[in-house]
Amino acid sequence: MSPENDPGTTSGVSPEQQAREAELLDRVLASFDATPDARMKQIMRSAVRHLHAFLRDVRLSEQEWKQGIDFLTAVGHLTDERRQEFVLLSDTLGVSMQTVAINNGAYAEATEATVVGPFFMQDSPEVELGGDISFGAAGEPCWVGGTVTGVDGTALPGARIEVWQADDQGFYDVQYGDDRVAARAHLFTDEQGRYAFWGITPTPYPIPQDGPVGRMLETVGRSPMRASHLHFMVTAAGFRRLVTHIFVRGDELLGRDSVFGVKESLVKDFLEQAAGTPTPDGRDLGARTWSRVRFDIVLAPAGS
Amino acid sequence: MSPENDPGTTSGVSPEQQAREAELLDRVLASFDATPDARMKQIMRSAVRHLHAFLRDVRLSEQEWKQGIDFLTAVGHLTDERRQEFVLLSDTLGVSMQTVAINNGAYAEATEATVVGPFFMQDSPEVELGGDISFGAAGEPCWVGGTVTGVDGTALPGARIEVWQADDQGFYDVQYGDDRVAARAHLFTDEQGRYAFWGITPTPYPIPQDGPVGRMLETVGRSPMRASHLHFMVTAAGFRRLVTHIFVRGDELLGRDSVFGVKESLVKDFLEQAAGTPTPDGRDLGARTWSRVRFDIVLAPAGS
Repeated sequence: MSPENDPGTTSGVSPEQQAREAELLDRVLASFDATPDARMKQIMRSAVRHLHAFLRDVRLSEQEWKQGIDFLTAVGHLTDERRQEFVLLSDTLGVSMQTVAINNGAYAEATEATVVGPFFMQDSPEVELGGDISFGAAGEPCWVGGTVTGVDGTALPGARIEVWQADDQGFYDVQYGDDRVAARAHLFTDEQGRYAFWGITPTPYPIPQDGPVGRMLETVGRSPMRASHLHFMVTAAGFRRLVTHIFVRGDELLGRDSVFGVKESLVKDFLEQAAGTPTPDGRDLGARTWSRVRFDIVLAPAGS
Repeated sequence: MSPENDPGTTSGVSPEQQAREAELLDRVLASFDATPDARMKQIMRSAVRHLHAFLRDVRLSEQEWKQGIDFLTAVGHLTDERRQEFVLLSDTLGVSMQTVAINNGAYAEATEATVVGPFFMQDSPEVELGGDISFGAAGEPCWVGGTVTGVDGTALPGARIEVWQADDQGFYDVQYGDDRVAARAHLFTDEQGRYAFWGITPTPYPIPQDGPVGRMLETVGRSPMRASHLHFMVTAAGFRRLVTHIFVRGDELLGRDSVFGVKESLVKDFLEQAAGTPTPDGRDLGARTWSRVRFDIVLAPAGS
């Protein structure tokens, strides 16, 4: 193994020094011996083990430790009810997506999951089937529709679909700085498990760059851009909750999404419609272009 | 190796699932390929590798991930200019002490280092040699004195000694809730490298328990108590900066300090003096008892 792959040892460090460091780690691990909850004990011991392995791998300097403390402090200070910089940090380090991967093992033909991101909010407004979730948020109208079924194809009536997305300037409502709710809603499938709504054709946008996570990405030469997407959270009794996005086929950012959220099965054809093309529900869009996409959602059984 | 010791693999997880998780990790690691600064690249890649290994080791659930985000958010919200909950977290997980260990390899007869803790403040008042650093903080008077030398025994005149400590109720001045400065000062050694001051006999105290770190310690069944100690930071041109404490021989907490800061070489004899015992500088303490301790400080060369 290369030194980078081997967290337990460090080249160029004397055996005596390594023994001192290992002894300290053992004392810290032993401090969790009396943890009543076995799962908590496992998590804390593993966290400590990997934290110390990181410190020893990179031989972290005291100045770098201080920079780390300052970075986390800045992340904490920016975080409030509308801005979750810790989630953004988790997302950009792939921690969120790895947690999704661990908890959503592939199941038959079920729709794949991806990250929830920092912009989901409870208590979105409800819209009727065929309703408009944009509530005035700017962007090209997009007709989104499909079905919700189990993996055996059984239609799921009354499934709850939460959708949320950015406007065509790349902002979610919680970033507007007022209390507007826009481009965020929930609806329920009909008796045949069908759903449809008007949203906005997704466009690429950068994750918020004005905080410590944005500065981190700049420092490491990474783009803050997210591939264009539309968020879904789908729940139905007896089925595994699905948190996912759909992405836009042809988007040049698909291969370098800043939060590692893209999965091939979630890339969909957003079909551009010329101005004047009749709309599915007869809505008059005047001289505007619009798009349409089909997304059939397949839920895995609960507990799978 | 036991599963806990082997971060790269996880028992009971299918090879296909493991491959998916490894592929995601590889994508995240590759996102740092363009980092201009080689050291930053090394640190970020190692941090990501260990974070993901932790997630995969414990198979972190999405609910546990959320609890982690909420925990860090609470740590961030409590942190301000006078309360550094991230440092407290680092201290209680042994991260601070391991960083000290990595950066302060044993050097000949030099005095050993320990954690800086969350209570150091810049801009302490200066006191004369023999002055009183307590500034009214409650506690038994303690005469502290000794020398500052290099490892060859050369006296170091003009060395700067920062000292700070809790009062006998376990509180530092920054915890008083007002702007008082107390039990915190700096002074300089004389031409023979000698120093002395009046402080307070150290007593045990709990680290702040009213925040998320305190709740974490409670959850895992750990005591928040710190062994009695007095903080030092010593600087002299041409020598490695020393951040350390002295501890009180006989303190029953020496073996279970909540931040793992105790080193045997830093345990000193605090000699209790009966009321009326003449003081070194003739100060009249009336009917009060007092103590005295000798602490000879030996600095390692800069760059060692």
